[in-house]
Amino acid sequence: MVTIDQFREIVLKVARVVEARAHPDADKLLILKVDTGGVQKEIVAGIARHYLPSELVGKLIVVVDNLEPATIRGVTSHGMLLAASDGEHLSLVLPERVMPPGSVVR
Amino acid sequence: MVTIDQFREIVLKVARVVEARAHPDADKLLILKVDTGGVQKEIVAGIARHYLPSELVGKLIVVVDNLEPATIRGVTSHGMLLAASDGEHLSLVLPERVMPPGSVVR
Repeated sequence: MVTIDQFREIVLKVARVVEARAHPDADKLLILKVDTGGVQKEIVAGIARHYLPSELVGKLIVVVDNLEPATIRGVTSHGMLLAASDGEHLSLVLPERVMPPGSVVR
Repeated sequence: MVTIDQFREIVLKVARVVEARAHPDADKLLILKVDTGGVQKEIVAGIARHYLPSELVGKLIVVVDNLEPATIRGVTSHGMLLAASDGEHLSLVLPERVMPPGSVVR
């Protein structure tokens, strides 16, 4: 169990995908540039088997905005997108209605 | 900034809304019964100004599954749904593709 204060430490935001490309050294990874409300950042996501870069551009997704940067196969990821998985299939998690990038998710 | 371990402590899951009704004592609140993969639980959500109970039933949403229960205006909430807000508008956050309830979001 976690407390509401623990949950509130995690900053989740709506972000728009601005660019998406394959990771040069990892089949499963994509590199996305996202806009989290005036701020652009690059994130690495393990969704290449489930999404094409071209279908991601323009999409509103949800990212963990205050995650410590991590270098994944040589590329620094400044956040993480949210996706649902049942172990086989994967789906991004999106706002149902159009919301401005930077909108807080909680 | 939070670490990946801090984020992993929060269990997010896809849930299906089974029932939805107005909170008897609070205009802004709805009470939802959700299925998080074989487990049903009741959650209280401050979305009554943005969603009708009838439009929620059957929807796949995302909930914080391991949040300490909290009593909100006399009703115990066993979790929290994720929604995006810009201070005026509000949108639920949903899996883009149909996923089984209980699918882990991360």
